[in-house]
Parts: sequence; structure tokens; C-alpha cells
Amino acid sequence: MLIREVVTEDVSSVLDLIKGLAEYEKDLAAVMNTAEKLHDDLFVHKYCEAFVAEVDNIVIGFALYFTSYSTWKGPCVYLEDLYVIPEYRSKGAGSKLFDRVVQVAKQRGVARMDWQILDWNQSAIDFYKRKNATIDEDWFNGRLFFD
Amino acid sequence: MLIREVVTEDVSSVLDLIKGLAEYEKDLAAVMNTAEKLHDDLFVHKYCEAFVAEVDNIVIGFALYFTSYSTWKGPCVYLEDLYVIPEYRSKGAGSKLFDRVVQVAKQRGVARMDWQILDWNQSAIDFYKRKNATIDEDWFNGRLFFD
Repeated sequence: MLIREVVTEDVSSVLDLIKGLAEYEKDLAAVMNTAEKLHDDLFVHKYCEAFVAEVDNIVIGFALYFTSYSTWKGPCVYLEDLYVIPEYRSKGAGSKLFDRVVQVAKQRGVARMDWQILDWNQSAIDFYKRKNATIDEDWFNGRLFFD
Repeated sequence: MLIREVVTEDVSSVLDLIKGLAEYEKDLAAVMNTAEKLHDDLFVHKYCEAFVAEVDNIVIGFALYFTSYSTWKGPCVYLEDLYVIPEYRSKGAGSKLFDRVVQVAKQRGVARMDWQILDWNQSAIDFYKRKNATIDEDWFNGRLFFD
């Protein structure tokens, strides 16, 4: 298994994985992204960065992150998505992808890495607890949608 | 009351407000930011942007935001902090600051604006409901601290 930075040739595979994750989270219709937009967001605007996990030349998982900002801590790394396709779970891909983003966060000297977990996703909660993460249940998400 | 973009001369006032908000959230010791770092993060690295509310030449509130990324929606506006000092609440400052960030989000054509609310902060929850926001209770925050 190879963990490496995303390249332009991965975009359609990563978009398929994004849709896989949305399906798992029971919200596929909410995915508005396209391969062209995702390409530009990663490689032209650089809104985000990503690693992929590859087995036999097939992208089987990804971790996508961006630089967020905490008024308390300064710049932070925000892990937006971490996903491995069901057939390849429990083989360490998610763990290696997560550790690679942690490595980036440490190299950049940020004080904190953040992400969110659905409250019913016990296997994800257990996974992050094994990573010694703090799991905080005290916050609600506020959102305005413009689409 | 004047709502305007933050300028370099506001940095120490905004840092005082950040500490005021941290005190309100019962976590003042967690604030590692300094005036020098906040200055560079706003005006040199441009990790974030902010509006301030001013009354009689005194900064009495601020809204700080940055560009986040959703794999489903593309770039989004993330409202990190919205704060008005207690003496100036219920006079519309928070509402005007919020509306100004919404205006930026719409101008930039993003699909969504996000923020978080502490679950015990009923006045904030009510405020955002009046803004027709979606309040989502289904997520936990995962965090790793490196400091």
C-alpha cells in the first residue's frame, strides 16, 4: 500500500470516493462537486490538499485537508474528509492516511488539527480514540446554504 | 455604529475581544495568540479576514472568518468568531457583523457558510435561528493538540 500526495490523474477516482463517503453518510444528493471543480480547487486555487492510498495502482482511500484558523491557536490543519472504500478497511489505510496528515500538521508547526465525526459513526469514534484524539460533544454546527 | 474591515490599528482591540470571548466560553487559558501573530495572520499570511463594529471610535465587536473547503460543496466561508462585548449587546452589532460576512460569502459565490455554537449558549442558538440558519446537533469535534 502506497500513501502519496494526490496528482491530477487521481481527480476522478477521488471524486468517486467522495461520493462513496456521501452515500455512507446518507447524503449523496448533497454532493455538488465535479471533477473539473475539484481539479481546480486542488491544483489551481489550492483551497485544499490531499493524500491518496493506492493498492495495485487503484486509489482505495483519501484524506483531504486545508488550513483553518483559530483565534486562540493561530493556523490549524482541518481534516475535511478521511475515507477508505469498504473492501479495503481494517488494513491500515485509514490509519496511514491520518498519520500522514498529522505529520504535515506537525511539520507546519500548527497547534491543533481538527475534524468532525458523525455521532452515530462508532467505528470512526473508536478509530480516533485510538489516535489519542479529543472527542468533543459540546458543539452544534451552524450553517447557511446559498445553493 | 460602523461595521468596517479590520485594519492594523485594530489588532490589539480585537485580541482583547478574543480574550473576552474565551472568558465567556470559560477557556481563557487556551488563548495562545498574540497581537504580533494575529497581525501577521490577518495582514501578512492572510489566513483569515475580519470585520469590526465600532461605536464612538471604540471597537466593540468583531467577526473573523476564513475560506474553508467542503468536498461536497467546494469552497465555503467559515465564521470562526462572532463576538460583541456585553455592554453593547442587543443593539444590532452582532446581527450587522453576521450579515456582513454573509454578504462576503454570497459575493464570492460559495455554497455554504459554516460556524459552531456551544450547546449551552441558548442566546446564540436563538440568534442564529432568527438568521434562518440550520443548527445541526449530529456531529462531534475530533481534535489533536500539538502545543
